[in-house]
Amino acid sequence: MNRLIRILGIDPGLRRTGWGLVESDGNRLLYVACGSVETSERDALCDRLVAIHRGLARIIGDFHPDEAAVENTFVNVNGAATLKLGQARGIAMLVPAQAGLAVAEYAPNLVKKSIVGSGHGDKAQIRMMIGVLLPKAAPQSADAADALAIAITHAHHRQSIVLTAVAQ
Amino acid sequence: MNRLIRILGIDPGLRRTGWGLVESDGNRLLYVACGSVETSERDALCDRLVAIHRGLARIIGDFHPDEAAVENTFVNVNGAATLKLGQARGIAMLVPAQAGLAVAEYAPNLVKKSIVGSGHGDKAQIRMMIGVLLPKAAPQSADAADALAIAITHAHHRQSIVLTAVAQ
Repeated sequence: MNRLIRILGIDPGLRRTGWGLVESDGNRLLYVACGSVETSERDALCDRLVAIHRGLARIIGDFHPDEAAVENTFVNVNGAATLKLGQARGIAMLVPAQAGLAVAEYAPNLVKKSIVGSGHGDKAQIRMMIGVLLPKAAPQSADAADALAIAITHAHHRQSIVLTAVAQ
Repeated sequence: MNRLIRILGIDPGLRRTGWGLVESDGNRLLYVACGSVETSERDALCDRLVAIHRGLARIIGDFHPDEAAVENTFVNVNGAATLKLGQARGIAMLVPAQAGLAVAEYAPNLVKKSIVGSGHGDKAQIRMMIGVLLPKAAPQSADAADALAIAITHAHHRQSIVLTAVAQ
């Protein structure tokens, strides 16, 4: 049996940063926990970033994941919105790296493809498939469900990397 | 005489994050130091963000600024470029806030207006005026000069806030 790897998936956002933890031994997926770090629009930007940093650092301290994965997404509509997302995403990449974890990045289409089998699945399909793949999970928000989807994507992707390395 | 305030200006960027320190007693400006934190495009994004965090944290540890100011800018051309800038800017806002400093944000036009008297000054004009306002400064890069310009902008702006408060 392969070693059990605990994976932290993060779906960054300034208002809500989803997080989800799964374990994978290469064959099975196990649900660990999920949730979201929320910040108030009434607070100063720098205080919201500190809150995201503190929230994610606490989750890493509590659950000791082995690896992390973050969604690599932007909505190319509005520079101000993309800048906001970037600021939250910077913190989401920083915290696991500061804790010494490898941090993988996945494009939204790859996440959808890994979970629903197509790059065009919608949020509802992702949430339904999370229920199938992780029956014990009951994510309370779309961000937490997306974070679990990112963690599952990494569980699949890192396994194929390992199998490729063994086959060579 | 007013208390001498030490201000850290930051011009965030993923490749080069400029920083500049000035002191102001409300009448005079004094140059303290400037430079830039550089990261390599060959490194993983998360490692580059950790390097920016470490570099800015070291500057705050070495120079003990009282307040910080960060430029609030984005180039609305390309979502990927804006996301990159946002990630660096998230770290630039986070580090001083984690150290307990107030972090002000200034739009590029306000910075230009504070330094060259017009919102349309170019980089060369800003650099020339830095030489006039801070004769002892010799910034080695445009990012360091911009960071000094942001620090000077905050010195002017915070003073007017204080004077308004006293006048009321």
